[in-house]
Amino acid sequence: MSVLCSRQIRLKTRPAGIPAADHFELVECDMPAPGIGEILCKTLYLSLDPYMRGQISGRHISGTIDPGDLMRGETVSEVVVSNSPDFEAGELVCHYGGWQTYSLTTAEGVSRVDARLRPASLALGIMGMPGLTAYAGLFYLAEVKPRDVVLVSAASGAVGSLVGQMAKIQGCRVIGIAGSEEKCAWLRQVAGFDGCINYKTQPLSDALRQECPDGVDVYFDNVGGAILDAAMDQLAIGARVVLCGLMAQYNTDNVLPGPTPATIIRSRATVRGLVVYDHFDKQQEFLDRVLPWLEAGKIKYREDVSCGLAQAPAAFARLMQGRNFGKTIIKVA
Amino acid sequence: MSVLCSRQIRLKTRPAGIPAADHFELVECDMPAPGIGEILCKTLYLSLDPYMRGQISGRHISGTIDPGDLMRGETVSEVVVSNSPDFEAGELVCHYGGWQTYSLTTAEGVSRVDARLRPASLALGIMGMPGLTAYAGLFYLAEVKPRDVVLVSAASGAVGSLVGQMAKIQGCRVIGIAGSEEKCAWLRQVAGFDGCINYKTQPLSDALRQECPDGVDVYFDNVGGAILDAAMDQLAIGARVVLCGLMAQYNTDNVLPGPTPATIIRSRATVRGLVVYDHFDKQQEFLDRVLPWLEAGKIKYREDVSCGLAQAPAAFARLMQGRNFGKTIIKVA
Repeated sequence: MSVLCSRQIRLKTRPAGIPAADHFELVECDMPAPGIGEILCKTLYLSLDPYMRGQISGRHISGTIDPGDLMRGETVSEVVVSNSPDFEAGELVCHYGGWQTYSLTTAEGVSRVDARLRPASLALGIMGMPGLTAYAGLFYLAEVKPRDVVLVSAASGAVGSLVGQMAKIQGCRVIGIAGSEEKCAWLRQVAGFDGCINYKTQPLSDALRQECPDGVDVYFDNVGGAILDAAMDQLAIGARVVLCGLMAQYNTDNVLPGPTPATIIRSRATVRGLVVYDHFDKQQEFLDRVLPWLEAGKIKYREDVSCGLAQAPAAFARLMQGRNFGKTIIKVA
Repeated sequence: MSVLCSRQIRLKTRPAGIPAADHFELVECDMPAPGIGEILCKTLYLSLDPYMRGQISGRHISGTIDPGDLMRGETVSEVVVSNSPDFEAGELVCHYGGWQTYSLTTAEGVSRVDARLRPASLALGIMGMPGLTAYAGLFYLAEVKPRDVVLVSAASGAVGSLVGQMAKIQGCRVIGIAGSEEKCAWLRQVAGFDGCINYKTQPLSDALRQECPDGVDVYFDNVGGAILDAAMDQLAIGARVVLCGLMAQYNTDNVLPGPTPATIIRSRATVRGLVVYDHFDKQQEFLDRVLPWLEAGKIKYREDVSCGLAQAPAAFARLMQGRNFGKTIIKVA
């Protein structure tokens, strides 16, 4: 193998509030050499996800990223050198390769990318971890039923857009909450949502009463904060609420309180917390069930792709500002 | 029938904060005369319950009590005159007779007091609506299992003390939260709780970590507010939380926020709102299952009895201050 250098993006300083590109630094380092049982992977696509902000704050269950640490993240990578019997050079794999051009790993935690996924970056988005999040939340935690009124926040994101489209396929009425007219238009016109509320321009409680006059049966929450409060006020009797993300809180030092318990009591709601790590055993079931919908054109998706590892900090800052539109992907190689 | 007068207690002015006796007034009025199909009942026992404060504020799902209105409440009464084929004079019945010495009702909503209940006031406490609340919450909403660590607030009350004792019978470890040493001692020494935290004298979070080092599997919340927040911070993975009462909020004009969603996500908890009205179909099952435990001495209870209807306002004020000890009952006749 020729002497190559690898590039990494590390956390430089811990941001207060929304991160900016200069909270990160690009570092060149020696190409890692695979030892016994190890695999050297070349990063093709890197996934940027909101939960990373929690890792930077030390408030995510998957652990903390400190200044000086390599930024962690899921990647689609090509095996370059394999000293493992489980993988061969040239195979496409999915693993937590991090924000770097090359990564070294053992076979543990590495999975092959399903050959049906084109582009392979789908393995990071609606057919990957965010997709499994949507699937487990909607079918296992919310126990969605036909004719449910389903409300989802951060609706144009990878999780939210799949939640809504799967609910439509189940025969639900689906309302999204998103942060721009462009996103709302896409959700209504392309993704087939029955309605979409732009929370930046519409009074949310009024809009919810108008869009969901008989109440919300399933609320899939990706944000917390004021949007969660407003949604809880509009729950139907017997509603199911999936708490999945806390975008409203990621960029603050404060811990935002939750909705008043009275909303849960009054609606006899069932509120559940979702951590996708609990549901990895459903990955194959998820693929087998949802991929045919994608292949049949019943599920639309958007990717927000930036080219080059060096773009990752700026793309992450945009994601944290809600200025992404679709799944945030860095095309690394 | 001789000409008798009936006495009623009505709401005089709507209190801000904790009600005092002078927010109510005692009124004498003519004895009501039963019409066709109606029953005249003499009140023996009147139940005072925390939810009544919500009715006074107009924040309870069962409706609002305005100044000038008769205070509503569940009673054990004796049928004095019956023009209904369903009941005979002399029978003991349970219904929403209100804060008055005599009440007039149709047969609807009136049930016979099970003859096994001695004293009959049990039909208002642990073998009545509060008991059914505890039963439905613990078995149907929390789906309690042997060896669960069960935490309950307002633990010496009618709901809380039965929750804890039924959980003990199921083979759980049970910790209570109560507001005096006397209550905690009774829960530990008489009701058989494994532990009890006096939230007025112990730092609650520290005490919870000490009493429930492996986390709380079931939290039965009767209070909301800071106690709910502290309990949510100590949940075990897969915890179930029953939201049943909001004592911390009843006497404020503010709507208290709830616990941060992060606690629910981190613990993958299932949080459910309990309204006992949904579970009246389980009343017979509840009696058949729990009454034998009571008769066998496996369940202890306390009543906080005041004699005379005129004592109801002061007793209600004490209940709102947490100064009652056990189920608050007014012995009216």
